Amino acid sequence: MRPDLRTAIATVCLSGTLDDKLTAAAEAGFDGIELFENDLLADRRGPAEIRQRCADLGLSIDLYQPFRDFEAVPPDVLAANLRRAEQKFDVMAELGVDTVLVCSSVSPEAIDDDDLAAEQLHLLATRAGERGLRIAYEALAWGRYVNGYEHAWRIVRRAGHPSLGVCLDSFHILSKGDDPRAIRAIPGEKIFFLQLADAPTLPMDVLPWSRHHRLFPGQGDFDLTTFTRDVLDAGYRGPLSLEVFNDVFRQSDPHRAAVDAMRSLVGLQDSLRLLDVPAAPVPTGYAFAEVVGESDLAVLGFTRTGVHRSKPVELWTQGEARVLVNAEGEPGAIGALGVSVPDPAAAARRAKVLLAPPLARKAGPGEAPLTAIAAPDGTEIFLCADDDWLGDFVPTGESAPEAGITGIDHVALTQPFDNFDEAGLFYRSVLGLEPGVTAEFAAPFGLVRGRGVSGGGVRLTLDCALVRRGGWAPAVEEPQHIAFTCADAVACAETLRQLGARLLEIPGNYYDDLLARTKLSADRVDALRQNSVLYDRDEFGEYLHFYTELAGARVFFEVVERIGGYRGFGVVNAPVRMAAHHEARRFARA
Amino acid sequence: MRPDLRTAIATVCLSGTLDDKLTAAAEAGFDGIELFENDLLADRRGPAEIRQRCADLGLSIDLYQPFRDFEAVPPDVLAANLRRAEQKFDVMAELGVDTVLVCSSVSPEAIDDDDLAAEQLHLLATRAGERGLRIAYEALAWGRYVNGYEHAWRIVRRAGHPSLGVCLDSFHILSKGDDPRAIRAIPGEKIFFLQLADAPTLPMDVLPWSRHHRLFPGQGDFDLTTFTRDVLDAGYRGPLSLEVFNDVFRQSDPHRAAVDAMRSLVGLQDSLRLLDVPAAPVPTGYAFAEVVGESDLAVLGFTRTGVHRSKPVELWTQGEARVLVNAEGEPGAIGALGVSVPDPAAAARRAKVLLAPPLARKAGPGEAPLTAIAAPDGTEIFLCADDDWLGDFVPTGESAPEAGITGIDHVALTQPFDNFDEAGLFYRSVLGLEPGVTAEFAAPFGLVRGRGVSGGGVRLTLDCALVRRGGWAPAVEEPQHIAFTCADAVACAETLRQLGARLLEIPGNYYDDLLARTKLSADRVDALRQNSVLYDRDEFGEYLHFYTELAGARVFFEVVERIGGYRGFGVVNAPVRMAAHHEARRFARA
Repeated sequence: MRPDLRTAIATVCLSGTLDDKLTAAAEAGFDGIELFENDLLADRRGPAEIRQRCADLGLSIDLYQPFRDFEAVPPDVLAANLRRAEQKFDVMAELGVDTVLVCSSVSPEAIDDDDLAAEQLHLLATRAGERGLRIAYEALAWGRYVNGYEHAWRIVRRAGHPSLGVCLDSFHILSKGDDPRAIRAIPGEKIFFLQLADAPTLPMDVLPWSRHHRLFPGQGDFDLTTFTRDVLDAGYRGPLSLEVFNDVFRQSDPHRAAVDAMRSLVGLQDSLRLLDVPAAPVPTGYAFAEVVGESDLAVLGFTRTGVHRSKPVELWTQGEARVLVNAEGEPGAIGALGVSVPDPAAAARRAKVLLAPPLARKAGPGEAPLTAIAAPDGTEIFLCADDDWLGDFVPTGESAPEAGITGIDHVALTQPFDNFDEAGLFYRSVLGLEPGVTAEFAAPFGLVRGRGVSGGGVRLTLDCALVRRGGWAPAVEEPQHIAFTCADAVACAETLRQLGARLLEIPGNYYDDLLARTKLSADRVDALRQNSVLYDRDEFGEYLHFYTELAGARVFFEVVERIGGYRGFGVVNAPVRMAAHHEARRFARA
Repeated sequence: MRPDLRTAIATVCLSGTLDDKLTAAAEAGFDGIELFENDLLADRRGPAEIRQRCADLGLSIDLYQPFRDFEAVPPDVLAANLRRAEQKFDVMAELGVDTVLVCSSVSPEAIDDDDLAAEQLHLLATRAGERGLRIAYEALAWGRYVNGYEHAWRIVRRAGHPSLGVCLDSFHILSKGDDPRAIRAIPGEKIFFLQLADAPTLPMDVLPWSRHHRLFPGQGDFDLTTFTRDVLDAGYRGPLSLEVFNDVFRQSDPHRAAVDAMRSLVGLQDSLRLLDVPAAPVPTGYAFAEVVGESDLAVLGFTRTGVHRSKPVELWTQGEARVLVNAEGEPGAIGALGVSVPDPAAAARRAKVLLAPPLARKAGPGEAPLTAIAAPDGTEIFLCADDDWLGDFVPTGESAPEAGITGIDHVALTQPFDNFDEAGLFYRSVLGLEPGVTAEFAAPFGLVRGRGVSGGGVRLTLDCALVRRGGWAPAVEEPQHIAFTCADAVACAETLRQLGARLLEIPGNYYDDLLARTKLSADRVDALRQNSVLYDRDEFGEYLHFYTELAGARVFFEVVERIGGYRGFGVVNAPVRMAAHHEARRFARA
């Protein structure tokens, strides 16, 4: 952190009671909070006790928010609003917070009159100033008359009171497509507060978009780096404060969410080059992927080439693909991924600054000292240099003919619902993998949301079931899988079937449709059909891929052939694959 | 059902594999289905086998859908589209379905030329007609050039081919606010298909609204009755078919969802006066509410006035409020509600037609033969006449001074997530209770969606947690409760506290805010504060209410004073109540 930049988080970002939120914010290392009024109202402690609690936790209260529908009203409403404000000033004094957020009015009682707004805000600022308090006026994107930050600033400038400034909220500005460059024209000392929120681009009205779908910086589509630079260049020196209304974060573990939030601010500062931290590594590829429990890799043409010196782990290889089979841990899951990075020590330092949870590793004598961190879904990520770690395995001397698999194309990890956006930011900020577009599709048992994250030679896909599932839906509808590369999917499928691999059978109806909707020849479609190879294409190329049946509870394998520069993961075929896996399981049970 | 009106449901409405969907549709009594293409593609059976399966289940396949992006394209695209169509015609022939849905094009290749569209649709209809098939052309609300039903009809009329007609979809028409009256000008025989869907009014683009938030008729804000009447008056005699894309239904038990769907069509026909079924009863009030397990009602001023003749059930009364305490069943829940209806036998007949699950009841000798049905959340609903059922209880002769409670105001039932919309339709169609506006609010552990349903003397509130909750959130955040009426909430709270009732303590911060934002006098607010009575108002009146702490695992009580014509349920105060209950539980455990 740059020493002159403090961090804060609005209590509304987090789930639970006020004390749950305060504890989580403090543990994640925030310097301060914005106190959301409803969190105060629902708390059994009085303002003075809350002040003390924050002090005990090392948290300042940087903003009291929000105060609504104040300005540009008829005289009788003004009197009631001033009375309301005075009571809030009392509360603020007890809390020890000096700034209150006043949102631009949405009230039908408001009048479209900037002079009146400025006059009444001047009056409010005078009352506040007498008590050593400050008014931060913010344009809501859906304000009745004032809904742009430049408009709010014109009113603040017109009012001309030292206790009146603006609050800038990235969502309200960027959601409307307003140009943030004009922020540089606002004197830094008149920017009383800065609220940061990212968001995905969504086809809905701005109010529900804001209230339900904000994200932490780096998780959405907004350019928070440029925005924040504009604000800092204007001379703002208050806290970088997060105000993120998000339906998922509202109900997920606040300790996790607060760390996710802090990671977003560290990442933002890194993007502004404010931190002394090694750059994000560009992984050159997968060193390995580890499957827990038994896995019959021989039928996929893999050879058991090594046995770990001190752990119950086997190394299976084929081409550049290396799979570890770990006898310890939850069977039938992908337990760990090794990514090759140019400088593991630098990558580990970056991971630490980015709050990646470190995993304790015991390296035996002479074994490679690998750094491991935990991804949000619990997968262990090893930061590997070259192939040093291979020395930990005693060669078996075994060999077998290969079956055409040449490497690892991607790994698909099902994500816990609460951690989907956290995971995107984690891989982006810690490992420098860039998240792709988030897409949703209808799977047989409900919606699935997914996206790829990729960079260098590493690709991951992250999926989660979007709507909660009750007893009806199968417990595991989207198991994890490792996708291998090959040069010829049809030939590879034939070979693997001869080796005894149980490949997933794809319905004939799929191929009838493929013949109808593509320009593939009848012979080509027949070859795909005979081998249950699926097909996709994008503007860059084509994708041929096939699957194994489930090996264990949660894992299967895919083999893919990328033709041309195809960039996707065959998501269009996922529902067909899921239905086939479901039927195969049902068949296996029957 | 009117004999000439068949019912159908699109497979896309339901969750699971195709066979899950077919079984559910057949069991719920549908006559036919619309086969959604993706359901076919993912099925391992060929079209002929699926045809046989449907026949075995007594289902016709009434529509194959959708065929996209056909019309008004350049010649080379037309050739490919015709080739694609011919293959689908092959599939349809095998399936034994004679009508295919062709959606208006969204393709960038399409040309804005109605003559060309008509010419190419004529060509497609000629090909279809030669095989005894029909083309039902539908305007998608987001079609590139054709996005209104009148426009689609103009093109169909211009094409002038007997195998070409329109498909009318209520969502595409009503979502855009198009007037359905012009449907009457379309000859009935040219309306090849009718798709029905309701929807809530939502502030989002029409495409995601359509793909995620459609509802069954009677569950949303559209006037399906008028719409369907217009279509029937035009002379349409095809099936009433449901096409509902809904994120929740997509993942919930298809057997439940199919019954819900069929109930919506029965309700729709009832609203059109096409059925010979007793009108919805207007309940005159609550006969009783039943709590399972122990409950200390004495401290609320209730008297144990009766003991059931044959069951371990006690009757507690105060004023007009009657609470049964049932020693059998899952403790700490509201097990049953008795509603007084003018004609229980007629209400029972209606309930049966509306597919309300009947509950077997054993009445002892001389006991009232009550009809009971199961609400979607499992609550038993008894249809009671007058007070006959009171004869089942042997009077105890006990008496105690009353504490001011005068009756039952409402009962609040937490709903399973999957059944929220089903519940609204159930109470509306079976009992004639009208659902109010659905509202969402931020509770301490996540979003809650809720609404009231009311009619006659009965009010219910139905809530559910909107986003799934992980391990972090308390298992029960919104327990059920019974709200009693009183004439003076402050006095009643004082009395109950003296009787030893454990009333829920409301934070002082709440009252400071109340003083600031309302015109209530300081004395009035002090009286509320002293007694932990909460306050709300609407345009009709005021609402004073207080709560008990939790009595058992899932139940608490509320006492309310309605002043003037206040219509709500104090939802604005729910987060404060929830936080207080949470703190009280935490305190009790500590």
